[in-house]
Amino acid sequence: MNYSLINNQKKAFFILLFAFFFVGIKAQKVIDKDLSQFVDPFIGTQKGGNTFPGAALPFGMVKLGPDCLPPGSNMGYLPIGNSLRGFSHLHVSGAGGGMKYGNVLVAPVVGDINLNDFNSARTYEKASPGYYAAGLKRYGVDAELTVSHSVGMHKYKFPESNKSNILIDAGSFLGETPSYFEAQFFVGSEIEIVNDTLIEGYTRVRGGWNMGDAYTVYFSVAFDTPASNYGIWKDNILYPVEKNSVDNGNKCGAYFTYNTAKGQEVSLKVGISFISIGKARENIITEIPGWNFKEVVQNARNSWNKVLNTIYIDGATAEQNKIFYSALYHALLQPSDRTGENPRWLSKEPYYDDFYAIWDTYRATHPLITIILPSRQRDIVRSILDIYKNEGYMPDARSGNYTGRTQGGSNTDMIVADAFVKGLTGIDYLLAYEAMIKNAEVPPGGNEQAYGRGGLLEYNSLGYVPFDKPNDRKMTFYPPAYRLFERAGSRTMEYAANDFAIATVAKGLGKTDDYLKYRTRAKNWSNLWYPKKSHGAKGFILPRRKDGTWDDSYDLLRAGSWGNFFYESNSWEYSLYVPHDMKSLIDSCGGRDAFISRLDTFFNRNYYGVANEPGFLTPCLYIYAGRPDKTNDRVRAIIRKYYKATPDGITGNDDSGSMSSWYIFNTIGFFPNAGQDVYLITAPHFKKTTFTLENGQQFIITAENLSEKNTYITSASLNGKPLDQAWFKHEDIQNGGQLNFVMGNKPTDWGTKNLPPSMSDQ
Amino acid sequence: MNYSLINNQKKAFFILLFAFFFVGIKAQKVIDKDLSQFVDPFIGTQKGGNTFPGAALPFGMVKLGPDCLPPGSNMGYLPIGNSLRGFSHLHVSGAGGGMKYGNVLVAPVVGDINLNDFNSARTYEKASPGYYAAGLKRYGVDAELTVSHSVGMHKYKFPESNKSNILIDAGSFLGETPSYFEAQFFVGSEIEIVNDTLIEGYTRVRGGWNMGDAYTVYFSVAFDTPASNYGIWKDNILYPVEKNSVDNGNKCGAYFTYNTAKGQEVSLKVGISFISIGKARENIITEIPGWNFKEVVQNARNSWNKVLNTIYIDGATAEQNKIFYSALYHALLQPSDRTGENPRWLSKEPYYDDFYAIWDTYRATHPLITIILPSRQRDIVRSILDIYKNEGYMPDARSGNYTGRTQGGSNTDMIVADAFVKGLTGIDYLLAYEAMIKNAEVPPGGNEQAYGRGGLLEYNSLGYVPFDKPNDRKMTFYPPAYRLFERAGSRTMEYAANDFAIATVAKGLGKTDDYLKYRTRAKNWSNLWYPKKSHGAKGFILPRRKDGTWDDSYDLLRAGSWGNFFYESNSWEYSLYVPHDMKSLIDSCGGRDAFISRLDTFFNRNYYGVANEPGFLTPCLYIYAGRPDKTNDRVRAIIRKYYKATPDGITGNDDSGSMSSWYIFNTIGFFPNAGQDVYLITAPHFKKTTFTLENGQQFIITAENLSEKNTYITSASLNGKPLDQAWFKHEDIQNGGQLNFVMGNKPTDWGTKNLPPSMSDQ
Repeated sequence: MNYSLINNQKKAFFILLFAFFFVGIKAQKVIDKDLSQFVDPFIGTQKGGNTFPGAALPFGMVKLGPDCLPPGSNMGYLPIGNSLRGFSHLHVSGAGGGMKYGNVLVAPVVGDINLNDFNSARTYEKASPGYYAAGLKRYGVDAELTVSHSVGMHKYKFPESNKSNILIDAGSFLGETPSYFEAQFFVGSEIEIVNDTLIEGYTRVRGGWNMGDAYTVYFSVAFDTPASNYGIWKDNILYPVEKNSVDNGNKCGAYFTYNTAKGQEVSLKVGISFISIGKARENIITEIPGWNFKEVVQNARNSWNKVLNTIYIDGATAEQNKIFYSALYHALLQPSDRTGENPRWLSKEPYYDDFYAIWDTYRATHPLITIILPSRQRDIVRSILDIYKNEGYMPDARSGNYTGRTQGGSNTDMIVADAFVKGLTGIDYLLAYEAMIKNAEVPPGGNEQAYGRGGLLEYNSLGYVPFDKPNDRKMTFYPPAYRLFERAGSRTMEYAANDFAIATVAKGLGKTDDYLKYRTRAKNWSNLWYPKKSHGAKGFILPRRKDGTWDDSYDLLRAGSWGNFFYESNSWEYSLYVPHDMKSLIDSCGGRDAFISRLDTFFNRNYYGVANEPGFLTPCLYIYAGRPDKTNDRVRAIIRKYYKATPDGITGNDDSGSMSSWYIFNTIGFFPNAGQDVYLITAPHFKKTTFTLENGQQFIITAENLSEKNTYITSASLNGKPLDQAWFKHEDIQNGGQLNFVMGNKPTDWGTKNLPPSMSDQ
Repeated sequence: MNYSLINNQKKAFFILLFAFFFVGIKAQKVIDKDLSQFVDPFIGTQKGGNTFPGAALPFGMVKLGPDCLPPGSNMGYLPIGNSLRGFSHLHVSGAGGGMKYGNVLVAPVVGDINLNDFNSARTYEKASPGYYAAGLKRYGVDAELTVSHSVGMHKYKFPESNKSNILIDAGSFLGETPSYFEAQFFVGSEIEIVNDTLIEGYTRVRGGWNMGDAYTVYFSVAFDTPASNYGIWKDNILYPVEKNSVDNGNKCGAYFTYNTAKGQEVSLKVGISFISIGKARENIITEIPGWNFKEVVQNARNSWNKVLNTIYIDGATAEQNKIFYSALYHALLQPSDRTGENPRWLSKEPYYDDFYAIWDTYRATHPLITIILPSRQRDIVRSILDIYKNEGYMPDARSGNYTGRTQGGSNTDMIVADAFVKGLTGIDYLLAYEAMIKNAEVPPGGNEQAYGRGGLLEYNSLGYVPFDKPNDRKMTFYPPAYRLFERAGSRTMEYAANDFAIATVAKGLGKTDDYLKYRTRAKNWSNLWYPKKSHGAKGFILPRRKDGTWDDSYDLLRAGSWGNFFYESNSWEYSLYVPHDMKSLIDSCGGRDAFISRLDTFFNRNYYGVANEPGFLTPCLYIYAGRPDKTNDRVRAIIRKYYKATPDGITGNDDSGSMSSWYIFNTIGFFPNAGQDVYLITAPHFKKTTFTLENGQQFIITAENLSEKNTYITSASLNGKPLDQAWFKHEDIQNGGQLNFVMGNKPTDWGTKNLPPSMSDQ
């Protein structure tokens, strides 16, 4: 029996029918199509996109997929041609840096078990939302996977053998490289064969990219077929007939052996929990009580269709449909909803994990969720505030229940301000404001890479984070060396933007003194602005010492990382990151024309990297200088060059759906300036886009005369009234309505006046 | 059958015999008596001593004892007259502040179970090292408890009843007061009746005095008698015949019911683990495989005798023996040896918990352990360094696997220096030095009450921690408000002492620049010295602002806490805390005579509080001014007044054996100046004291002519050579030898010259 769903229009039709009759989704207003058919989970899995191609629900806790060899893949997966070790239950999608998760690995093995080598080549593989399948060449096994929120379901079709084994590996995880500071480190594992259809235990691991404390993944594995034989292993030694391995710091596992007829299927359900084995067991009973694999696949697909249908694009090419819905799929894989699964404190608030990292996702992913799933974004913000309440800081990055690795500023400030200006309800904004103030006023101390704002004392007293050579005493601190002044450039630029976010909320809450204070601080970016010239541009962000002097020999294209002046970027890029104070930036650059020319140089010389989040907004900056046509040109060129419907179709890490969200906004035709109530119009790529909102309203964007040549907006109307500006507000979407564009083949003066707001307008 | 050991000389003799023949302790050199007969675990249990009277081994993980009502007792226990709720497995001894532990409560209940009230009065109770027993009036049950390292063993003698129940409460713990910031908070619990002789589960709690992250206590309870009936409860509702309760954030428990004949005994063993249920189960098998309760009691007693016999005092009164060995018993209850039970990282290093707090214990307890059990102290230091390696800071206070609540300075610096100067081997002093430098150079940031040194930037730049009113923005941070300048006085004074500890190790490691740097910083105490006068004394430590001005109106007797200038002390006391720079202090006070007069005023006006650790060394300070006779007077007066062989015999919290260690040193006749290779001679209280050292050597102190009147040292000899100074070095003990005193009834000029070393001598 071969179960395939991908690109199968007929099946999709029946599924739709099924959804209509049995799931009871209203048909009148809500567009309800099998949009999951367009999703190709393999997009972005090669050449660094690092997207996770396995089975998962939207924001799902369990992300069940293949872990491949050689080790080193962030999402566990490597394409066919590489061997497959087994299927594990937790992954992140689109991440770079040290690997995280890869816990509770299940592997079918036919014949004698060799713990040092049970990997297999694949004869085929396929995937669709909530489903993954592969043929294992070495064993002649067909493997199929699906999921519910916190349970992974496996089905293995075996050849004829009296040695058909299923291994449950409690010691396996990704990224074990003892010498690497971002590696995961083993802490412990335990396993018990409870009876001939039940294996339970846990795995405990620490570290990984966010250098988190130990997390424990409890599991309960229920089999539909009683094992005829069994055993465990400990430290790579098999102990047949033994039933349990106690945690004494050893890696362990267990196996069931079956005497299978040809084509005999064995199914298993792996309940996962961060709380307990009992909870893992209960998760199975609650989520997948039966053994109907097809039904679980269908439910997963329905879950995806429900969220994919919030945006329906009309008139897209097959490739565009594929890229678009795969992007939407990738954007909604994370953060992971772990409500009810927080082992650190008891709370009635929602609990989300795998903020990986907010530095990436605040710019496009969270604004996207805010539009299409606002109650979800509300819950995410509430979970961030609950973390603040219980830990003392909001996280910038978090995984495995622990905060760690702030990349730039305190960008939860942007998340809070974005929710505030867009009127998300059900959030305690006074608490949120307190958390922002803590970021802005209380230095995080010892671990400057984990909490709040590193270099804060200097930033608050000097107006910038100075870049002096740190005291070079050699210390092997773990977490790594305390470097107060590292990332001084990125930090200063982002702190200024964060301070504007605080000013925004302060103003809204009527805190006038605070508003004025943080509005002043939001100008701090200019304290690193130095009149250096390069390729006709004048004025760059440069390293500045504590004593006020500058390093004007600094290479403007020098890209950095943790220890450097800029994190993952350079001066050309960060000198354009002033999202809240664009008028002043344009003035500093020498006025509109000089600014436009500078942007042209930036793009023409290929200084722009779409894969780098600090530049996410840059193509839109032309709009602030009255040239939306140039934004349109740049966006279309970037998409043509960098987005494809192929496994290597995402350039650079997808970063928890960040690259994907960038694509979604820009092809629909607008882009958020996160933390501000402004959507910048970049020009639509589809004839019609329909947002179906949670409140029942629809927001429809149309593009009259759109064609390959007619890409420029010549006029626009919002709800029947002319719109002669290249931006609009969140309420225009939220209340539902119609945004119509008329497209032409040449730039006009549409959108050249009524520029989007800047701080200095207030 | 009634099993009693206390004060029973005959049994003690047989025990001794048993020890000789079966335990194989050498009889030639080692004194091996049943010194545990002198231990009264109830000493210090009333009027704030807060000592734990239940069953525990030396440094034992399980501390099994009664939890009583009304709630509010730090060690769970309250004396007869208060009712008893049950017996739980983890406690701290001598602690104040928010309660910690009290997990996995077992309670015998005869008749119908009322979960809201199953407490009982006691008809009797008794305790000896490793043993506790009580009669439960309400149920007619005799309860006996004993322990191994990580297993609690219970024996209940029931009346005739078909409703003899044993409750296992996984939701119970001490100090649940939701509105109190130092309270413990419930996180989760789970329980499962595995079969009719086995109940397993865990309890998960956070908070408590050290405001730690969640800790999980796993348990496995094996019964010697199959239950005839059973059930569980969840949220205080009973579910008879149900077998398990999954953790959904509910408190739960389970019970076994027995049909008992009159006097029928039921025994159970509660394995405890911080790792897993499997490990808890294994701990039982490893430590108490059988059901011989007497043997377990005997083994516990043997363990105690082994450590108590390291110091044998001759010629003490019955009361002195009781106070002395009970004090030694209390000094060795903590920290808890949790090697192999660390759920946060895997390591081959030892793992100790319940440093509660090092601010208390570095002064006397750890120096005591260093003499009598140096391999234990080595392991404790190694565990502290392993915490540093994995978390980034050495702990000042730690419990439930999490560091929290630094009370004053970074006093692990004193622990490291003390180990270094006393030549403890097996410690990576380069790593330890790095950890000290981190304390001294890297501000702990957000949580100034948890790690390193709060106010460090100011201390390092100004030379003191300034006491300015903090920015009074109201914030409800949890952990509580960030108060950079709180405890500015205690911090400055202790940082100076800590800096001398660093200088000491720097010098020893040949790091001359560092030595000079930290030696200079060790003078920083003088930056808060202000020429204020009071009662003839001139010069006091006073609050000083950032701008250099002073608050000279500050009340010299104002005692503070977390939010104040001094932590748990006042200016009279802290102005005398300069343990490393006594010559300068004496000069600052106006010379020797003025200093002696100042000390006299201090003691005569009852400004001295023996219960307060910052004053632990104060009676010895006369020695630095050449008046050991006055030290002797003060010490004897303090002991007469404040130490008794009664439940209220300890004044103030015993603080993990700190008060007890103070007594031990001072009655033997010397006291350590921790972090320096100096023992100050206070004068012996016993005719002969024999230290039996780990290296096989004995160090013997004799006091010729000692009597109630002859308390003054008139002459002394060390290994036959005259000793005309009131101090000696660690090697004098370590190499074994004889320190003989001749006592007289009047002070002489013995010890008035050759004063102990000060920083300025170097």
